[in-house]
Amino acid sequence: MAHPAYGGGFGNFGGQIPGPQMQMGQPGPNLYPGGYQPVHTAYMGNYSSAGDSMWTYFTAIAGQDGEVDAEELQRCLTQSGISGTYSPFSLETCRIMIAMLDRDYTGKMGFNEFKELWAALNAWKQNFMTFDQDRSGSVEHCELSQAIAVMGYRLSPQTLNAIVKRYSKNGRIFFDDYVACCVKLRALTEFFRRRDHLQQGYVNFLYEDFLQGTMTI
Amino acid sequence: MAHPAYGGGFGNFGGQIPGPQMQMGQPGPNLYPGGYQPVHTAYMGNYSSAGDSMWTYFTAIAGQDGEVDAEELQRCLTQSGISGTYSPFSLETCRIMIAMLDRDYTGKMGFNEFKELWAALNAWKQNFMTFDQDRSGSVEHCELSQAIAVMGYRLSPQTLNAIVKRYSKNGRIFFDDYVACCVKLRALTEFFRRRDHLQQGYVNFLYEDFLQGTMTI
Repeated sequence: MAHPAYGGGFGNFGGQIPGPQMQMGQPGPNLYPGGYQPVHTAYMGNYSSAGDSMWTYFTAIAGQDGEVDAEELQRCLTQSGISGTYSPFSLETCRIMIAMLDRDYTGKMGFNEFKELWAALNAWKQNFMTFDQDRSGSVEHCELSQAIAVMGYRLSPQTLNAIVKRYSKNGRIFFDDYVACCVKLRALTEFFRRRDHLQQGYVNFLYEDFLQGTMTI
Repeated sequence: MAHPAYGGGFGNFGGQIPGPQMQMGQPGPNLYPGGYQPVHTAYMGNYSSAGDSMWTYFTAIAGQDGEVDAEELQRCLTQSGISGTYSPFSLETCRIMIAMLDRDYTGKMGFNEFKELWAALNAWKQNFMTFDQDRSGSVEHCELSQAIAVMGYRLSPQTLNAIVKRYSKNGRIFFDDYVACCVKLRALTEFFRRRDHLQQGYVNFLYEDFLQGTMTI
């Protein structure tokens, strides 16, 4: 069993594969509530037609090299209107989303990683919209704190406060920053948890390993 | 003595206080080569007139609350033209610059922190310009790797490669991303080193301490 502070829930990937247009559907059941599971096995055989249209969409975005980099992801998310504003979706957030899934350090995503990200984005959007009830495209500090608690992370008020301030802009949290926060929380926790073999809540890090995990996320 | 991989050099703060216009002067000698030293003590008594004009500049940027937040810093750096392009200076880089100096977790900088940052930015700009010889506003992958080595960090080719890809855009590294990389490398190393009491290159982290340090940088 994982250390109780590590969280789970929305931070984990799992849920329905959306169609190519970023639909804000209800996320499906999380088949692997305690851990990390690539979407392509979780959905095996259930969504072949959605998978086909997703493939067409992916190839259009990826271009000739057949992989999606941060700039291509930024264009795709800006055009999808997922953030609910007319501003470009944050390039920095796109970079950390790719870094989270980039197990071979190429700085790009293949099709399976793209599907996995798409499912996670839909779950985060759904979660964001439960707080953004006036559809302003942003939420308040206390709402991000609540969202982090809902994801299952058990953090002190001081840590929560520092995190929330870090991702806010003019006192509010916009969707792309909200995603950046979710991605980093998820990726850093996974990085830590993988090394916490006894799940006791502490890890002995070598400097270079620490840097490799934290500089790229 | 610090662990030999931790680096130093350009990553440390120290050097001349610039005037309010972002001057690309030679950085002065680093009075505290092994560690972190606030500029206001390092320069005591030597730069009073520069300090006065800096104060005027700071108060104009900071506005009524007397502190500089990430949006104010972004406007100031964009207007200063420090990046050498017409694009806005990255807000994300401004946030991590503030996070690096924000010891009380307010998300803002006071005057002493502002001066400290200004001196560091000048040193980084100077270092960047030694690589950007055609004044394109960007450098190549191998040049960022060289810069990291020049700063004294001893990292494996795999770690260097992952870091460089993370901060590049269309295959090159622009000044604001270069700064983001320097700031994070510096701040994460400091965070790690402060906990490495015997300077042996490894640290035992509790989960929440790990998150607080890495989520806000």
